[in-house]
Amino acid sequence: MSDAASAPAVRAAIGDSEFDRDTALVPRGPGVHDIDLSAGWTIMNAVNGGYLLAVIGRALGQTLPHADPFTISAHYLTASRPGPAVVRTETVRTGRTLSTGQASLVQYDDDGTEVERIRVLASYGDLDALPDDVRTTAEPPAMPPLEQCVGAEDGPAPGSVSSPIADRLRLRLDPSTLGWAVGAPSGRGEMRAWFALADGRDADPLSLLLAVDALPPTAFEIGLSGWVPTVEMTVHVRRRPAPGPLRVSITTRNLAGGFLEEDAEVWDSDDRLVAQSRQLARVRLG
Amino acid sequence: MSDAASAPAVRAAIGDSEFDRDTALVPRGPGVHDIDLSAGWTIMNAVNGGYLLAVIGRALGQTLPHADPFTISAHYLTASRPGPAVVRTETVRTGRTLSTGQASLVQYDDDGTEVERIRVLASYGDLDALPDDVRTTAEPPAMPPLEQCVGAEDGPAPGSVSSPIADRLRLRLDPSTLGWAVGAPSGRGEMRAWFALADGRDADPLSLLLAVDALPPTAFEIGLSGWVPTVEMTVHVRRRPAPGPLRVSITTRNLAGGFLEEDAEVWDSDDRLVAQSRQLARVRLG
Repeated sequence: MSDAASAPAVRAAIGDSEFDRDTALVPRGPGVHDIDLSAGWTIMNAVNGGYLLAVIGRALGQTLPHADPFTISAHYLTASRPGPAVVRTETVRTGRTLSTGQASLVQYDDDGTEVERIRVLASYGDLDALPDDVRTTAEPPAMPPLEQCVGAEDGPAPGSVSSPIADRLRLRLDPSTLGWAVGAPSGRGEMRAWFALADGRDADPLSLLLAVDALPPTAFEIGLSGWVPTVEMTVHVRRRPAPGPLRVSITTRNLAGGFLEEDAEVWDSDDRLVAQSRQLARVRLG
Repeated sequence: MSDAASAPAVRAAIGDSEFDRDTALVPRGPGVHDIDLSAGWTIMNAVNGGYLLAVIGRALGQTLPHADPFTISAHYLTASRPGPAVVRTETVRTGRTLSTGQASLVQYDDDGTEVERIRVLASYGDLDALPDDVRTTAEPPAMPPLEQCVGAEDGPAPGSVSSPIADRLRLRLDPSTLGWAVGAPSGRGEMRAWFALADGRDADPLSLLLAVDALPPTAFEIGLSGWVPTVEMTVHVRRRPAPGPLRVSITTRNLAGGFLEEDAEVWDSDDRLVAQSRQLARVRLG
């Protein structure tokens, strides 16, 4: 096993990596794209919602005249399964600096009935055409350096279940948000981690769609366990990420009525805020 | 003029108020709703994006088996104008506790060409069916009591332009976020206000969709002026608001590359966080 605290000796390139192969779509006709959803991005048999959003985001980037997702909103309808799926895309509006598209990811039941998994609306632009002004007041999350955070190679967390997605990510969690793993959740709705792909592929706008939904649920640190299915997630990609590992910070301020929001910020190695996301998720209260 | 610091002597009821009349749709057929967009909710000739979202949200509530918007995502395509419009709605999926729908608001050019203004995806549920658990860690915004905040009856802000929407809202701004109005913006991306409808109608889930987009742009306090058009806005309605004025707090943490996010929280008179929203908007840098 490679040392997850450092990049692998041979790094996969953007365009030629596991993530790129597993999000590759085969065009079948105008606005119709075939894909085999990889079992490699599952956790407890559920296909990760960020991986699915990256698949759909890639299909939209191939459909619209602009390549980069600026804001992408996904409503998750039913749970996706590994295997064949179809992404249908539609151009809603084309503008000079922004274009808007819609997409659906569907799969088929055993009897051939089509079941829609996710419906998406998104506005795309060209990140490289944006002016370089930065007046952000947000600060990168306060967290220990990568080598002081906790990764899979440090041994599985007690009670955790190994999952295929864990092998594809180089996720190192801030120990101060790991109380849940030893039965002592902090009570704060916070989760922080260093994030990279295991094969060393650098981040790009599509992999940011994965990064925002790749950490353990904040609900674990609030003292809840079990599945926290996403109802809706919207991601804003604000800048093309610089090479190197990302820092992802997720915060929940409002758990109420059986739902919670997860707000994610993703920072790159240049200390730039490259993505913001918010999802509404359901919790099962024991 | 009524004293805007207190409720009007005769309060309009939910279902029988200016807001209800101006969001009323006439069904034309399955999933087709006619409306005359009121000029009363404009600012500088632009129809307010929150009012438009309330119109679309109402059409979806009449289409789906669930009545309340839990999460509603709108991509703003072109600027709406007062006058006739058509809202088309479609049921995407019906579930036991949540249903998902899609909507488009369209208008017609002088030559009869259809122009889409807004495309929306939303998941609806029943707010009254939610458990009453609250584990929120968010706190209501620190702001002065309503009578110490600044409303239209205190005289127009220097340089401000009166707009029809101002007459329909009872908006009282926190003086500490009013520096922009006297040429001394704070530099902080914050805007806070007490919010109510001028005719005293209490808040409901639909008027929350208006409340999140009714304050002056946070960009004003960062020192920018001019129009800040919304690209996309997603609103989570988390609870049916209690009667009485709302507190709305808006924060921008990342102005970069000509775009900014506006995060809104809406608190009711019971100190409950009833809605959260985030929008991506464009800024014109001088």
